[in-house]
Amino acid sequence: MNVNGQAYRTIRLHADGWSVEIIDQRRLPHEFVLIRLTTLEEAAEAIGTMAVRGAPLIGAAAAYGLCLGLRPDASDKAMRTGSDLLLKTRPTAVNLRWALDEMGKALLPLPPEKRLEAAYRRAAEICDNDVETNRRIGGHGLKLIEPMAKKKKGERVNILTHCNAGWLAGVDWGMALAPVYLAHDAGIPVHVWVDETRPRNQGAALTAWELKNHGVPHTLIADNAGGHLMQHGQVDLCLVGADRVTACGDVCNKIGTYLKALAAHDNGVPFYAAFPASTIDWRIADGVAEIPIEQRDAREVTHLRGLGPDGHSIEIALAPADTHAVNYGFDVTPARLMTGLITERGLVQASAEGLRKLFPG
Amino acid sequence: MNVNGQAYRTIRLHADGWSVEIIDQRRLPHEFVLIRLTTLEEAAEAIGTMAVRGAPLIGAAAAYGLCLGLRPDASDKAMRTGSDLLLKTRPTAVNLRWALDEMGKALLPLPPEKRLEAAYRRAAEICDNDVETNRRIGGHGLKLIEPMAKKKKGERVNILTHCNAGWLAGVDWGMALAPVYLAHDAGIPVHVWVDETRPRNQGAALTAWELKNHGVPHTLIADNAGGHLMQHGQVDLCLVGADRVTACGDVCNKIGTYLKALAAHDNGVPFYAAFPASTIDWRIADGVAEIPIEQRDAREVTHLRGLGPDGHSIEIALAPADTHAVNYGFDVTPARLMTGLITERGLVQASAEGLRKLFPG
Repeated sequence: MNVNGQAYRTIRLHADGWSVEIIDQRRLPHEFVLIRLTTLEEAAEAIGTMAVRGAPLIGAAAAYGLCLGLRPDASDKAMRTGSDLLLKTRPTAVNLRWALDEMGKALLPLPPEKRLEAAYRRAAEICDNDVETNRRIGGHGLKLIEPMAKKKKGERVNILTHCNAGWLAGVDWGMALAPVYLAHDAGIPVHVWVDETRPRNQGAALTAWELKNHGVPHTLIADNAGGHLMQHGQVDLCLVGADRVTACGDVCNKIGTYLKALAAHDNGVPFYAAFPASTIDWRIADGVAEIPIEQRDAREVTHLRGLGPDGHSIEIALAPADTHAVNYGFDVTPARLMTGLITERGLVQASAEGLRKLFPG
Repeated sequence: MNVNGQAYRTIRLHADGWSVEIIDQRRLPHEFVLIRLTTLEEAAEAIGTMAVRGAPLIGAAAAYGLCLGLRPDASDKAMRTGSDLLLKTRPTAVNLRWALDEMGKALLPLPPEKRLEAAYRRAAEICDNDVETNRRIGGHGLKLIEPMAKKKKGERVNILTHCNAGWLAGVDWGMALAPVYLAHDAGIPVHVWVDETRPRNQGAALTAWELKNHGVPHTLIADNAGGHLMQHGQVDLCLVGADRVTACGDVCNKIGTYLKALAAHDNGVPFYAAFPASTIDWRIADGVAEIPIEQRDAREVTHLRGLGPDGHSIEIALAPADTHAVNYGFDVTPARLMTGLITERGLVQASAEGLRKLFPG
């Protein structure tokens, strides 16, 4: 999508033809900075420190990270070491494993001297496919928004989202926000309630930033506010992304998603997760019991970085010194609370039957 | 309770015998500063800017604020003007109105020249009564914790709380935290999950601070995390305060309380609100429909104050410049989601019948 009127993807090959250019999302919304990754280790660090984040983008970054790792050494051992390093960076996102599996399938049958070129080709395909996938997700989600807009006769359709499943989370378009962008571009008056999404504030830092750049009306709210808005008819639809979806339709997504799903359920507000098929983990049924939840640095809870009065980024302490904190990155919303799921193949019930109908065999 | 080993109340008469000393809660947790209120306007500003906050403390501060207003002029007109000014400072807390009504009942029948002394006497009573009330609330709440501790055989009892309904929110002891302090002092191993409570972070700034000062084990979490903890059996009991409770047991409390109540209900975790009888608004039945919800400055969502690296308080921007935000201060948890209510008269079902049994006539 556009930044200052110029089209960008979140990740792309640098003009040098081998290094990888990403948007440093840690510096948004206050600075728009591109960084160049030149080694496997730099790619792993970019994923681990969330310079790139969002399930599909993590997958794309891992694919390119492996390319960088194969430049000095394309042996089986280097493939394995590289994959292992990348896999450890973020334990929850299934796309990471998926992308590395795809790379392995494409490369391991080849002799080492042919792997590097094939790796770059496959990584580029993963990126292009993600863009097309997200565009399709947007089209299917748009079918939810259109009848709401008709029913509201020109009044704005209010969509609540949590965290960032916008174009910054994918290679382009985004997942939860793809339908929003399509609706907005089609002239449907949409307005987005943006959960700030503590502790890392991806809503304030990323979702508000990208909606602003695209001109979509939006309002930032504390994570605590969504239930109140739903009780008072201020939310027509909830759209979130997913970091991992089980074969039964349980949705693992940014911590706090479950709370919003409960509120939507309690108030009859439709609640959908939008994600590509690569997010589905067919090996897992019960999300709450089976998905390991990443614990991140407690400092993300006790401290917060933002723009100081002098225009420089600064970190402040929010709690008494040495306050003990924990920081779970994700939670699981049971399928029973999901109105449905939006994938590139269409809308589907959040159930084993629903998913199997769309993805037979 | 104790601060640096010395006993404090949150509000008290200054040694000069007429001005009013409060803890400036805006500067916690990084600085412990007492300020002296000398006029009605200073008291109103202290309430409006949340130097004092918490339903019972707001009532006590309003009572003393009226005393200060009567010093230059104790006429009926001054009583009315003073009450009106104080009443406007925080529209949601019913204790504000209650305390001012109490002052009116005590003072209006008296000739103006006798009002000032009576006002100080009544304000002191309101404070002393609050302390005694909270101690009783603590005793009744303790009865919930004791059997849990027995059942857990020495394992810690995990209590989740939202915002600050601790001693800083009352004159002393607190409401939701009064049972926690009593349990801790009785040697029961309690541990508190402290919701940070965006946007003003009263959990991080106040609850963590007061628990630390009293030595109660606690862990700070993002507001988004409570649902995940409850899904995984990490919460034995939720205790929150209340800013207004309807005659039917709906509980208006800090924004986000409703989301935690939904999660508790979904996971079979007992969820109680603790508050004094003065918090009950007998004129109102349906909390969601009838309680006006205060909207505060949107800047509380887009900006955040904390301790900078140089040890000074500093405000940072969290969102892109000019981001539109809204900031609802409270939400309403319907009685159906409350396991029960804890008042100074005992534990009671959150229902019209339950409340009427405790407070007949």
